[in-house]
Amino acid sequence: MIQVGVNGYGTIGKRVADAVAGQPDMELAGVAKTSPNYEAEAAVRKGYPLYAAIPERAELFHDAGIDIAGEVEDMVMRADVVIDTTPSGIGEQNRELYEQYDTPAIFQGGEGADVGDASFNARANYDLATDDDVEYVRVVSCNTTGLSRLLAPLDEEYGVEKARVTLVRRGGDPGQTSRGPINDILPDPVHIPSHHGPDVNTILPDVDIDTLGVKVPATLMHLHSVNVTLEAEPDVEAVHDLLDAESRLFLVPEETGIDGTGKLKEFAMDTGRPRGDLWENCIWEDSISVDGADLYLFQSIHQESDVIPENIDAVRALLDREDRATSMATTDETLGVGLESLFGGARQRVVPREAGD
Amino acid sequence: MIQVGVNGYGTIGKRVADAVAGQPDMELAGVAKTSPNYEAEAAVRKGYPLYAAIPERAELFHDAGIDIAGEVEDMVMRADVVIDTTPSGIGEQNRELYEQYDTPAIFQGGEGADVGDASFNARANYDLATDDDVEYVRVVSCNTTGLSRLLAPLDEEYGVEKARVTLVRRGGDPGQTSRGPINDILPDPVHIPSHHGPDVNTILPDVDIDTLGVKVPATLMHLHSVNVTLEAEPDVEAVHDLLDAESRLFLVPEETGIDGTGKLKEFAMDTGRPRGDLWENCIWEDSISVDGADLYLFQSIHQESDVIPENIDAVRALLDREDRATSMATTDETLGVGLESLFGGARQRVVPREAGD
Repeated sequence: MIQVGVNGYGTIGKRVADAVAGQPDMELAGVAKTSPNYEAEAAVRKGYPLYAAIPERAELFHDAGIDIAGEVEDMVMRADVVIDTTPSGIGEQNRELYEQYDTPAIFQGGEGADVGDASFNARANYDLATDDDVEYVRVVSCNTTGLSRLLAPLDEEYGVEKARVTLVRRGGDPGQTSRGPINDILPDPVHIPSHHGPDVNTILPDVDIDTLGVKVPATLMHLHSVNVTLEAEPDVEAVHDLLDAESRLFLVPEETGIDGTGKLKEFAMDTGRPRGDLWENCIWEDSISVDGADLYLFQSIHQESDVIPENIDAVRALLDREDRATSMATTDETLGVGLESLFGGARQRVVPREAGD
Repeated sequence: MIQVGVNGYGTIGKRVADAVAGQPDMELAGVAKTSPNYEAEAAVRKGYPLYAAIPERAELFHDAGIDIAGEVEDMVMRADVVIDTTPSGIGEQNRELYEQYDTPAIFQGGEGADVGDASFNARANYDLATDDDVEYVRVVSCNTTGLSRLLAPLDEEYGVEKARVTLVRRGGDPGQTSRGPINDILPDPVHIPSHHGPDVNTILPDVDIDTLGVKVPATLMHLHSVNVTLEAEPDVEAVHDLLDAESRLFLVPEETGIDGTGKLKEFAMDTGRPRGDLWENCIWEDSISVDGADLYLFQSIHQESDVIPENIDAVRALLDREDRATSMATTDETLGVGLESLFGGARQRVVPREAGD
């Protein structure tokens, strides 16, 4: 069993911990947290060994009546690998600690690309992390993960001549409502391209991509308005079937009446998904359009959860335990990624479409 | 003096009436309204002759103590031209009335393209409306107006190979808050392309353009994420100067600290603009970017007011009174379109930019 420590227990950390705990080949060595708040209590109730992320603050947990298993160093020592889900910039500071105990580590997309030896997306470049020289990897951000998952199969099948994507981004997560904006639409950043395009190139170095970022008053998910100029001119059906065959791309059927991120999240919660998570890119099936070599589509990305399966796969890749297909299949099955958990087997993967549709 | 009647007195109508009243060569023959509400009272206070748009409801104005000058037929008879600003679909029904009195008319973008003999944008196709055979024109919608103003100079100067635009649209006008959405991002329409691309082709028939529509929780302005693949590879400075020379394109300077539609509107109100109107496309100066032949930029469009100067120019074009340049200059000067009204002459048109910027 791979002993996995999770450093940081916020939006990503708590989801990663739950996912690790569900894997047949992993054991949660523990989670490290800075403050003894309601999330710390929840971790203890779940039976997760809790460590104080900041040694000087260990006493605060004691004062709050929350039992801790030790300090973060103990966890790093015990773990075969650490998944660092601390806020942007803190992961880089933590690397020294991981090096001290010779513990491989996985960082998140909020860190700079140079925090690790490689950037990681399971679908697009799993094998890179299996290299013996790679001890630290960075799972790219939610948006870059979503773009990589989409562009990888398109590039393999048709070749991508150029991708142009407008990212209509939520202002903050559901709990971060004071970040705004309210009733506003902001170019963010106003400079073009945004960092997302270059970040995709840390995963797919040869893909020509320009990205534009916009920020709006929403908290549920991002929405990408995607244009990909392909090196071929496939028909819509072919693109549809290519994307539909990918387990982490969910083609949202028009007949569900799901018209935006609000109904998507409602749907996910109705299916019993933990926290209403949507680990898959949610691509509106009827938005898939082809004009010559230009492919267009809309996809929504759940910023809180789409990187969770990637973190799990990164563990196996980094420790060279499984090949890509096996790892992804195991992760998907244990988490419940894919159509079966959304439709309970009532829906076939490939939806019959009307003639001339 | 050209006698101009305005049928409909809502968001567009009240602005058009004010604009007409300020023209040296026009006289407001009157405004027609369906209901005796606060806007009707405001019209009377301004001294605008008020007509009952629905004859059967004339009595309601009397009951409300609001003096009317007659019924809409009287206004159509007296006017040299009618600007129809009634809600989408009503304009088409009104055409018969205008034909009955042989009164040329100008419709709005909510009507289908076939409501008139031609679609109109002052910058892009003024001369078409001066044709003797053209008696009815349609001023295209706010978004199509904004796109036409931008694409016309680019097409003339460099040639447009293909334009791809994501329109991040406000859910409704400031008073239409019950339309939603709240906290949501919706592909709208989910089908691609949206109607905006084909609508641009009613003005610029030869421009290849694909558009995607998104709807978000905002009411102030739209925001366009624009990509134009040009037939040349100009540098950023050249594109900047080309756009800066257009009176109805306002390049928002970075040093103003205007970061989105909220501050844009605040800025417009601080300058004393009536109703905080922004008649110009608001292009973020620092978003103008060139990657090979690909031009990118963000522009915001004030849905309530950018068509107002176009309606005024359409009057002169339709009656063949002035050429394009003269009409646009008169309209801009009387309304206060352009930098002078925004910066009070304190800002030069072309901003000195740092070397290597």
